[in-house]
Amino acid sequence: MSILTFLDYAGVALFAATGGLAASRKQLDFVGFLFFAATTGIGGGTLRDLVLGGGPVFWVKDPTYLIICFMVGIFVFFTGHRVEWRYRLLVWLDAVGLAAYCVMGAAKGLAATGSPTIAIVTGTMTAAFGGILRDLIANEPSILLRPEIYVTAAMAGAAVFTGATLGELPLWLSSSLGMAAAFGLRGGAIHYGWMLPRFHSRPGRPTEEAMKGKSRRKG
Amino acid sequence: MSILTFLDYAGVALFAATGGLAASRKQLDFVGFLFFAATTGIGGGTLRDLVLGGGPVFWVKDPTYLIICFMVGIFVFFTGHRVEWRYRLLVWLDAVGLAAYCVMGAAKGLAATGSPTIAIVTGTMTAAFGGILRDLIANEPSILLRPEIYVTAAMAGAAVFTGATLGELPLWLSSSLGMAAAFGLRGGAIHYGWMLPRFHSRPGRPTEEAMKGKSRRKG
Amino acid sequence: MSILTFLDYAGVALFAATGGLAASRKQLDFVGFLFFAATTGIGGGTLRDLVLGGGPVFWVKDPTYLIICFMVGIFVFFTGHRVEWRYRLLVWLDAVGLAAYCVMGAAKGLAATGSPTIAIVTGTMTAAFGGILRDLIANEPSILLRPEIYVTAAMAGAAVFTGATLGELPLWLSSSLGMAAAFGLRGGAIHYGWMLPRFHSRPGRPTEEAMKGKSRRKG
Repeated sequence: MSILTFLDYAGVALFAATGGLAASRKQLDFVGFLFFAATTGIGGGTLRDLVLGGGPVFWVKDPTYLIICFMVGIFVFFTGHRVEWRYRLLVWLDAVGLAAYCVMGAAKGLAATGSPTIAIVTGTMTAAFGGILRDLIANEPSILLRPEIYVTAAMAGAAVFTGATLGELPLWLSSSLGMAAAFGLRGGAIHYGWMLPRFHSRPGRPTEEAMKGKSRRKG
Repeated sequence: MSILTFLDYAGVALFAATGGLAASRKQLDFVGFLFFAATTGIGGGTLRDLVLGGGPVFWVKDPTYLIICFMVGIFVFFTGHRVEWRYRLLVWLDAVGLAAYCVMGAAKGLAATGSPTIAIVTGTMTAAFGGILRDLIANEPSILLRPEIYVTAAMAGAAVFTGATLGELPLWLSSSLGMAAAFGLRGGAIHYGWMLPRFHSRPGRPTEEAMKGKSRRKG
Repeated sequence: MSILTFLDYAGVALFAATGGLAASRKQLDFVGFLFFAATTGIGGGTLRDLVLGGGPVFWVKDPTYLIICFMVGIFVFFTGHRVEWRYRLLVWLDAVGLAAYCVMGAAKGLAATGSPTIAIVTGTMTAAFGGILRDLIANEPSILLRPEIYVTAAMAGAAVFTGATLGELPLWLSSSLGMAAAFGLRGGAIHYGWMLPRFHSRPGRPTEEAMKGKSRRKG
């Protein structure tokens, strides 16, 4: 379990750092940094533990996770404003955290249920929810509605890890493959603007207009 | 239990379809469709299971629900843009899903606690939360703040089902009555613009202004 | 436990009242008042119970809490529009609710885990989450992004209560000290505009611009 424990702490610390950088962009006060660091750092894992059931969530059982978030929040409070390329840093740390957390989430889901479907979903959810929550409470446009690959990278990493684990590869190898898949896809999305094709798209009209008549040509 | 199981699958599939249609309006990519379909399809039931306690949520115990969401998401990905009246379809499917889910949620709450108050609340919550979550993550104006009957329809359906069940009507009849109440009210709201009276209303001032003095006439 | 039970009911009722006042500002209908009163009244405690694990949340075990929320919502429906200084009232009731709920949340967290870190976090979370949720669903600017002291007051109250309890002060005294700390800080923030220092701040650029080059001077 030591690789997974390391990934867990690393994922929490990296997402906490992105939360602190978001707080820095919003010019929040000291407690605002702690709040954003903790919410982003433990948000995804909290949702994962809640849906899997089985008692208190991970940071209630082991407050070390919270203390990591707070220390990271304090560090970013004193240093974040000095980083000229703060938003780029946030985005890249988020990519590494995403890679660590999708493997960790899939491992927990697979251990708890044995179902590969659940493992992929808990991996994706653990990795993606922290960033979604950070954007939501920071009132930034959600990563979900941007065209770049994000949830896809988390899902790919979780799927690769789950497949490799079911194929009985050793843990260090399946973890590395899962992380490489997630980080490779997300990094390509950040650097080259990779996105999935959208099939045939057609934008939605404003809700008011869309409820009015005159458009029922088919049906 | 077979009527309730059918309603559960139907509610999940219908809400998943509305999530896919929302993704289509937002021109998301393939994984975006899966994400919106799953979040909308299982969101309400997940919240219900969390507050009732008792271990893993329903889709962790039975991944069929997830697979339904994904299949519906894939179907809408390939067909949603072709529907000229996409938003009307979203709204009407949501109404049928609301009717199925308020009965299902009330039945689970009543079975778990025996309390009619809890049954009505879990029914309302199960039915309304998926749509609220969909609007929130799609960044659409929330149905909660629109004047139409929505939460009211869910509450009415849950209350009718709970009352009929306590009155020892057979399950098929109490389910039908509950669904008819919810769908009737919501359908009337969509088609005729039904809304509840608002008593004496007075709009709120912007928060900044409201904190300034000059208005303390009473008190 | 009677002091804590009283604080629990009081916190629920006060936050329910602020939810009702938010519904009044948004000119919602009757069911909208019930929904906002219940969501704001029980939101923080629900999150606390979920992360602590241990079965159904408090209002499922004891529906009295829901009934209090509904009665408060009905009362505000008939009276809220008559209050000229409705938003000021909302803010001050929220401050009293915050004080009651940070003590109650810390007491539950401490009883469940024995960890002071967890107690401070559950206290802060219980007190702050109801208001955050209310602002989110009412589509108001979140209190989190305003410069005033808010989360800080909840955290201070939870910390004072936890410290006093570990120092073996009697319950009535540690509760009073915790509430006084939270209400004093929050009240000062409302009345005098108290805020924490922000160290060296620098606003974030819009996300689009921040991803473009030309700014990588250090690194």
